[in-house]
Amino acid sequence: MNQTQSNLPKIPPNLSAVNPNLSVDCVVFGFDNQNLNVLLIEQKQIGNAPIQMALPGDLVLEDESLDRAAERVLFELTGLGGIYLKQFYTFGDPNRVKNIKDLEWLQSYREHPQARVVTVGYFALVKMDDFKPEASSFAERVFWREIHEVPELAFDHNQILQKALLTLRNEFEARRIGLELLPEKFTLNQLQVLHEAVLDIKLDKRNFRKKILKENILVPTNQKQQNVLHKPALLYEFNEMD
Amino acid sequence: MNQTQSNLPKIPPNLSAVNPNLSVDCVVFGFDNQNLNVLLIEQKQIGNAPIQMALPGDLVLEDESLDRAAERVLFELTGLGGIYLKQFYTFGDPNRVKNIKDLEWLQSYREHPQARVVTVGYFALVKMDDFKPEASSFAERVFWREIHEVPELAFDHNQILQKALLTLRNEFEARRIGLELLPEKFTLNQLQVLHEAVLDIKLDKRNFRKKILKENILVPTNQKQQNVLHKPALLYEFNEMD
Repeated sequence: MNQTQSNLPKIPPNLSAVNPNLSVDCVVFGFDNQNLNVLLIEQKQIGNAPIQMALPGDLVLEDESLDRAAERVLFELTGLGGIYLKQFYTFGDPNRVKNIKDLEWLQSYREHPQARVVTVGYFALVKMDDFKPEASSFAERVFWREIHEVPELAFDHNQILQKALLTLRNEFEARRIGLELLPEKFTLNQLQVLHEAVLDIKLDKRNFRKKILKENILVPTNQKQQNVLHKPALLYEFNEMD
Repeated sequence: MNQTQSNLPKIPPNLSAVNPNLSVDCVVFGFDNQNLNVLLIEQKQIGNAPIQMALPGDLVLEDESLDRAAERVLFELTGLGGIYLKQFYTFGDPNRVKNIKDLEWLQSYREHPQARVVTVGYFALVKMDDFKPEASSFAERVFWREIHEVPELAFDHNQILQKALLTLRNEFEARRIGLELLPEKFTLNQLQVLHEAVLDIKLDKRNFRKKILKENILVPTNQKQQNVLHKPALLYEFNEMD
């Protein structure tokens, strides 16, 4: 047994049932109609160690599937449920949890702090307004952070986030994810803002409109925006046939 | 320790360094200019147990990355190297290696035959003619099998194969994989056969040509096929600008 004792208080999960070598990490992206954000936790402080931020993640139980583990861990740390989490990549660098910055935390929260942990990454994209995260378990705080303002995270969580972003962008460009974030009827400007936020680019208004209308995925409705201060824009909806 | 003793000969890998909970499985697709095939091994027989076919796969060493493990395991079992293997999905059903059909094999080849094993799936698509697989380690035989003729495989390997096929098709349709299987200059018929093999569909010749030419990814060369019995067809190449 390679267990390292810490004289700090231990807050163990159900240790008998935990697989010490396997975890899940959840990258939940939130769109607030303007920017792309990611859900982060602040770890409970251990002794005098610097407080770290992280993605919500934890070890998998021996008898649960990976999908179920992702759902459970996200719920336990942030209170969020009913989110479709999709597996996107597994991170298996033998040294991914062996950084000095993570050691004190690992010694306090893990039965086998030296164990190699392979983590399976899950991601989701939601409307931020639909969810009110609440911290519990070893999360002191849970919060949304704009993706350009993400600090250094625990473990290899910055890498996991980057890989999730790449996956999100590929899926968005293939139109497999993301369009459900718009209201049923929307303006071309709302659609452009969503593209700009997810793909992290600035689009030329005229070119964007030309391109998107040519793709034949939109149909104009006969309605316009209401209660806006500027000239109301035409509303579109997605072509059901697409 | 949950180790089960078997009185059959044990052919252990480098056990001290093996992670009993983590494996990789490799789905190598091979195109023979006509059909899509997959590389399988026949497991060495254990006692009188029925001989099983499987994907090439094995446990990961404690100090190697997942990518490196996939490369090593494929090489050890089939002699194939220099293949770009891409991670596509991780399979974590708690009971995925606990089927009775796999038990005798596990007891002979694994130090911890009862352990939960999560496996990371890798896939590749190659020209079959470029590779000559040779069986070694616990593979008695290694062979290509047309994807419609794959038998029942060990563990959950049929599921892993199906998921790999889905991924391959998505990547192929997004033109991120597969076009390198054609010669530099090719006929529209060769391109159609490749599409039909990978996507497992029959395409109407006229519609396929209309659609693919409209996509603006091909340029006609000024050359035609040579030494063919039928009327020689025009050769195309991919538009470098695409």
